[in-house]
Amino acid sequence: MVVLGFLPCHLSSFHPPTTAESPKSNGLRSTVYASSDLPKRVLIRRRESIVVASSSILAALLPVGPTSNPSFQNAKAEEDEFQRDEERVVQIFQGTSPSVVFIKDIQIVDPRKRTGQIDVDEDENTRVEGTGSGFLWDKTGHIVTNYHVVDKLATDTRGVQRCKVFLIDANGNTFSKEGKLVGSDPAYDLAVLKVDVEGNKLKPAVIGTSRDLRVGQSCFAIGNPYGYEHTLTTGVVSGLGREIPSPNGRAIRGAIQTDAAINAGTGASSGVNFAIPIDTVVRTVPYLIVYGTSVSNRF
Amino acid sequence: MVVLGFLPCHLSSFHPPTTAESPKSNGLRSTVYASSDLPKRVLIRRRESIVVASSSILAALLPVGPTSNPSFQNAKAEEDEFQRDEERVVQIFQGTSPSVVFIKDIQIVDPRKRTGQIDVDEDENTRVEGTGSGFLWDKTGHIVTNYHVVDKLATDTRGVQRCKVFLIDANGNTFSKEGKLVGSDPAYDLAVLKVDVEGNKLKPAVIGTSRDLRVGQSCFAIGNPYGYEHTLTTGVVSGLGREIPSPNGRAIRGAIQTDAAINAGTGASSGVNFAIPIDTVVRTVPYLIVYGTSVSNRF
Amino acid sequence: MVVLGFLPCHLSSFHPPTTAESPKSNGLRSTVYASSDLPKRVLIRRRESIVVASSSILAALLPVGPTSNPSFQNAKAEEDEFQRDEERVVQIFQGTSPSVVFIKDIQIVDPRKRTGQIDVDEDENTRVEGTGSGFLWDKTGHIVTNYHVVDKLATDTRGVQRCKVFLIDANGNTFSKEGKLVGSDPAYDLAVLKVDVEGNKLKPAVIGTSRDLRVGQSCFAIGNPYGYEHTLTTGVVSGLGREIPSPNGRAIRGAIQTDAAINAGTGASSGVNFAIPIDTVVRTVPYLIVYGTSVSNRF
Repeated sequence: MVVLGFLPCHLSSFHPPTTAESPKSNGLRSTVYASSDLPKRVLIRRRESIVVASSSILAALLPVGPTSNPSFQNAKAEEDEFQRDEERVVQIFQGTSPSVVFIKDIQIVDPRKRTGQIDVDEDENTRVEGTGSGFLWDKTGHIVTNYHVVDKLATDTRGVQRCKVFLIDANGNTFSKEGKLVGSDPAYDLAVLKVDVEGNKLKPAVIGTSRDLRVGQSCFAIGNPYGYEHTLTTGVVSGLGREIPSPNGRAIRGAIQTDAAINAGTGASSGVNFAIPIDTVVRTVPYLIVYGTSVSNRF
Repeated sequence: MVVLGFLPCHLSSFHPPTTAESPKSNGLRSTVYASSDLPKRVLIRRRESIVVASSSILAALLPVGPTSNPSFQNAKAEEDEFQRDEERVVQIFQGTSPSVVFIKDIQIVDPRKRTGQIDVDEDENTRVEGTGSGFLWDKTGHIVTNYHVVDKLATDTRGVQRCKVFLIDANGNTFSKEGKLVGSDPAYDLAVLKVDVEGNKLKPAVIGTSRDLRVGQSCFAIGNPYGYEHTLTTGVVSGLGREIPSPNGRAIRGAIQTDAAINAGTGASSGVNFAIPIDTVVRTVPYLIVYGTSVSNRF
Repeated sequence: MVVLGFLPCHLSSFHPPTTAESPKSNGLRSTVYASSDLPKRVLIRRRESIVVASSSILAALLPVGPTSNPSFQNAKAEEDEFQRDEERVVQIFQGTSPSVVFIKDIQIVDPRKRTGQIDVDEDENTRVEGTGSGFLWDKTGHIVTNYHVVDKLATDTRGVQRCKVFLIDANGNTFSKEGKLVGSDPAYDLAVLKVDVEGNKLKPAVIGTSRDLRVGQSCFAIGNPYGYEHTLTTGVVSGLGREIPSPNGRAIRGAIQTDAAINAGTGASSGVNFAIPIDTVVRTVPYLIVYGTSVSNRF
């Protein structure tokens, strides 16, 4: 089963729900709008594409502006179209992938041997129990992922579970940090981790809205199947308003169906995959960050 | 194994075969041309797209005319192209999906309890034995589907099998009706059901020709995998003139191969899927409607 | 596991490596440049598309020039774009598929009965042990394929293995010839066969470079899954610089990942498939032709 989110416009287009779920505290807001320094123009193109994450969440937007490829100017008009379409997909990937992280579930084999930071290093005293993807939510280091990716950490009573998060810095180099669990909600299959990284190293995902999605729109998924980091697959929105099972057995409503190849761990792509709508993510994440749980459980 | 047909142009482009298979009776013709009130202009665009149905049949055509999305006018030219391509896929789905129906195979558990219409209701006295897809053939309520979708009904000797057909009305609401078996031919994996519905509620599929198809053309499949109604998947025509096995063990010639994700019930998409050419469908269906069997068996 | 290469530009853009691997002999060069009579203009479009072969190799280039379809001129501008994109994919397939061959692994059941050419005929004395794809390297009849496709022939000590190669002549008709093993290197999963065919019957694949590839570019794979000859599937470049296992257990570096549906014999497409970069192919094949082995093993 897949999971995730996605997005295709500027955070400032985020309209807080007018119901009781609306975020109230200023603290919350400043967190949500942390990436408001992103260019505003992406807003007008929010219907162009959506990005669905693979067994994971995900993010992204069509970068604007002329392509840097000089051969474009010379090529004939009818040739340009095909190239430009291709160039857009290339740019979607390049613009979004720095916001996508790779997550490793690590278990400490012998807790008596553990010492501080060494916990997330992979040595003979640790075991990788699973992997997943996530995306950068803000410049303070919050990462959105699926609950099922971190469920062992979320339910760890022995203190032996860790999460190692692989990020990309401004120069395109990969580095890793321990991800601490901030909040989680199995009802939506969502969780938030936090990494201790300087803000200018982080590129939060550009968040859009899932409200205007239509079946047939293009879909771009970035994930880490079998550990192949930053894998891009494409497809279309196959259906909307689907109901899929959540980790706690209840139904997640409003899921987005896509035929973009997403591996659910079986080694085969079924062509029928699901993403949690970004509007659900946007409504839930602030509560996970502040209360550690979603609105419905916070009392 | 997959199956089906599809279409990409107006019914009036249907040229009856000049051989003995040519439909002769006026009744036949009027049935075939029942949807001739569809706009003629779709004809000129018949090569633009084809629609392949998923484990089922299928349908559709590129709607013509300017998009209603006002942001299109303002966006820069080079941005428009990408959006317009996306918009076309959205419109193909919206224009075609009302012609695609969802079919449930129902078995009455205890035939002594059955009473009229109640037969297709799903209660404790019925069992859903399978599902499939089909498309609306005309405004009189004929539905084209695969033989394998209704084979239990076709070979039912105890009178316990029923078909429940889910349609969409003019307002986009789903309703269901019992589908009566009109005719079938396992040699082509085709069958025709009839539902008792007022014509103005029905939107027959726009039928095209498979004669001009070329490998590489775009493919749009609408079906109901795992019961997820009106699922869209896309791909290309992967091959033409393929030979695939029919339910009666003989070969179906001229099948269309596509990489659009179609689930054959195994939970995995093989990337190698097949559709019965619409020309075969168009040649066969009138005989199924009038004689209950195809031309080769009608004597 | 998948395998291969591809290409998207003219052979004359082939820059021999400046290291010790650089081809030295004139014989080699003339072999490599055998298809230099291909139009130079394809060079400028080398970034437009790449072609990845399916469990096999692959080939191809965007044909240039206006489409021959007269309806194009009449259709409205905004309609044209969609059609033209489709037309390009059609032309990529038509231009490339004559360079793609189908290979059958044949074992002679009773070697005492064999007589000359009859060895590759499929009669009661032979058994088809596997199939694969390959592409035409030059007009002298060299064919590039994967080592794993011909490994039985490469390791045959009893003289009972044969390869039957199916090619397409200038008129589009299929014919077959025995393929003799010229060289192979399991470290790169590459092998070269040679068929005895007149040059003017052969259309070598247009070779490009994999150096400039970017994630998100379009991918076209032509292969023969389940014996369905010249099957086209499409997708994008999902990742670059991947490491995949070779038949000899070592790693092949720099592999290209794609979500184009490629069947690895399991009946399911995983959405995570790999191709050997054409630059690796171009560097290796001349050595296989001249020495029967790759540079690292030739001393």
